Amino acid sequence: MKNIAIIYFTGSGSTGRLAEAVHAGAASVAGVQAELIAIAGKDITEGRYSNDAVFEKLSKADAIIFGTPTYMGGAAAQFKAFADASAGVWFGQGWKDKIAGAFTISAGPSGDKLSTLQYLFVFASQHGMIWAGNPGIPSFMLGKTDGHNRLGSTTGVMAQNTTPQGQPPVLDPGDQLTGEKYGQRVAEVTLKLRS
Amino acid sequence: MKNIAIIYFTGSGSTGRLAEAVHAGAASVAGVQAELIAIAGKDITEGRYSNDAVFEKLSKADAIIFGTPTYMGGAAAQFKAFADASAGVWFGQGWKDKIAGAFTISAGPSGDKLSTLQYLFVFASQHGMIWAGNPGIPSFMLGKTDGHNRLGSTTGVMAQNTTPQGQPPVLDPGDQLTGEKYGQRVAEVTLKLRS
Amino acid sequence: MKNIAIIYFTGSGSTGRLAEAVHAGAASVAGVQAELIAIAGKDITEGRYSNDAVFEKLSKADAIIFGTPTYMGGAAAQFKAFADASAGVWFGQGWKDKIAGAFTISAGPSGDKLSTLQYLFVFASQHGMIWAGNPGIPSFMLGKTDGHNRLGSTTGVMAQNTTPQGQPPVLDPGDQLTGEKYGQRVAEVTLKLRS
Amino acid sequence: MKNIAIIYFTGSGSTGRLAEAVHAGAASVAGVQAELIAIAGKDITEGRYSNDAVFEKLSKADAIIFGTPTYMGGAAAQFKAFADASAGVWFGQGWKDKIAGAFTISAGPSGDKLSTLQYLFVFASQHGMIWAGNPGIPSFMLGKTDGHNRLGSTTGVMAQNTTPQGQPPVLDPGDQLTGEKYGQRVAEVTLKLRS
Repeated sequence: MKNIAIIYFTGSGSTGRLAEAVHAGAASVAGVQAELIAIAGKDITEGRYSNDAVFEKLSKADAIIFGTPTYMGGAAAQFKAFADASAGVWFGQGWKDKIAGAFTISAGPSGDKLSTLQYLFVFASQHGMIWAGNPGIPSFMLGKTDGHNRLGSTTGVMAQNTTPQGQPPVLDPGDQLTGEKYGQRVAEVTLKLRS
Repeated sequence: MKNIAIIYFTGSGSTGRLAEAVHAGAASVAGVQAELIAIAGKDITEGRYSNDAVFEKLSKADAIIFGTPTYMGGAAAQFKAFADASAGVWFGQGWKDKIAGAFTISAGPSGDKLSTLQYLFVFASQHGMIWAGNPGIPSFMLGKTDGHNRLGSTTGVMAQNTTPQGQPPVLDPGDQLTGEKYGQRVAEVTLKLRS
Repeated sequence: MKNIAIIYFTGSGSTGRLAEAVHAGAASVAGVQAELIAIAGKDITEGRYSNDAVFEKLSKADAIIFGTPTYMGGAAAQFKAFADASAGVWFGQGWKDKIAGAFTISAGPSGDKLSTLQYLFVFASQHGMIWAGNPGIPSFMLGKTDGHNRLGSTTGVMAQNTTPQGQPPVLDPGDQLTGEKYGQRVAEVTLKLRS
Repeated sequence: MKNIAIIYFTGSGSTGRLAEAVHAGAASVAGVQAELIAIAGKDITEGRYSNDAVFEKLSKADAIIFGTPTYMGGAAAQFKAFADASAGVWFGQGWKDKIAGAFTISAGPSGDKLSTLQYLFVFASQHGMIWAGNPGIPSFMLGKTDGHNRLGSTTGVMAQNTTPQGQPPVLDPGDQLTGEKYGQRVAEVTLKLRS
């Protein structure tokens, strides 16, 4: 049984919806256990994140998928506080050879989301992880209408927050599908590489 | 009189030394006032930064130079918390047409510092700011030994933290010079563009 | 009178349409002359670009706006051949203090276009240029329907190639508007900074 | 037997030296065949690369390691011409699930080399490849003097061209070691993931 941890921060809840889609996809693969781990603001003091239980879980994962909204052109500060708190793990290269992946969401179709995914790639590379991106030509280029990878993102998953202000967060159906397929993808790569 | 704000986060103090070098360079230019503003951890609650006085100062600046260590491949969480707190300013495009620039420091010569500078560029672009990078061929390529731009960074200033552990932070002399010249550069661009 | 050069490569013609929109915006500003310069494949031999007349024109420009399709996640090889041919200018810092900007187009809404704009930013920074991005909240976030900055790009202009295969290239009206306003923006920054 | 292709462009020959180091490391792993493939300028006409034999070889590879000098802040135009020529492979996702990695070299310690590696990561992600970066804390941070990862690069290998002008290209011994270990690393990941 392989373990996939999906660690994410959500502000308004929309990144949480996307995390659930990715989780559903990963959990649908036989031989894989997937767990959602939310980064809590209360674990951050003066900008520093601390939660031993979370790092304990991550140390046992075969794959870690990182999720964050794109705030002001990059990963949310709350996510970054978690990332900075992994410096000790980094120095011991404790996550080396784990599979990595990522997803992000913001209001615009492009919206500088690639900046966030590129950062997460650098972060995972510092940890010696192996990156599984988001393969697949966008559906619309194949004449399909299911919305898979409708924004055209290849390094990880991008979604667009289209929830009207003040409403409970909902995902675009194409983005939901993209998240699910991505979870499945990471799970399959993990089964292969960590066997 | 033009105002240049240098807003930075420093953990161990080495980014603070670099901020002082940039400040000295900016302040040396006639017609320019430069101010150092440190981001304080105590202003961050559950990952969110709040300090009205800081944003008030920034609103009056003609140029804002951003400084942060490179932690785990990107801007420090404390800096990012400040950046995220500027979302209201962004929606009103309150920093539009201000000059922007940046500096960062980490332990390695390259050390993924470009990732941090690229992020700060995206951040400043969201604000509609105009970016003044770090011009100049590295000294060593010109047969000089003063160490100017010794790491070869063009989008902003990179410095290498060479302080032995447990010692008070010191800057490499070349990095000190690079910081000073950069402060001067941003000041000169500001005098021109904001006249 | 300030001179703005728009240098671009176009394959199918759609980048050319976007270049014309940027040109129209720049040329609409009093006190500015704008010129379109196409990068021609015939000037590239074994991957190396050579055209003295083009570099002569660029040396006289106050601003240079770079345009290229996003091919396979980055600037087109033809554009890159032009960029590589500027190494001599770079060593003499001949474009220092000129204003820089950029636009790109590809099939997807996001489509890794930020990768291209980030590259062009690094390229311009090597030349000591000052970068004028694409300010402005996307129209749809302001409740407007004119499509301005509909893709949500801040570092430069992104457009989406929606031309049906085999048809003459057309621009989305929102992208057309975004290109025009961007040309105007760069012209205004140039008038100010190069006065 | 797993096949690793190392495809690279070299101008002055220094990227070629680095390619040989990566090749030596990959070839030293039991169960792996490694092949060096140079991108030739003569295969590029008006900026377009064409060489069916090269793409035929790559189609059979289990891993592809990309190598290019960093010219003007990005991959060399000759490399980019090769990348653009892979658009047909991309549309069929012919390289999906292959392992990817990269190396680059330029004159400065940092020298915007991360820009090149980030591009190659986006390029490989478009192809649905799985990225194996360059793990390992820099030697000097561990109190060692062998120069491994002396520049501090995690997404792929960076080397610094220190060859005096007009001399045959030589690699820094630390960069040589970094290249060799990286070839070995990619080979080991390939054996695991492609079994």
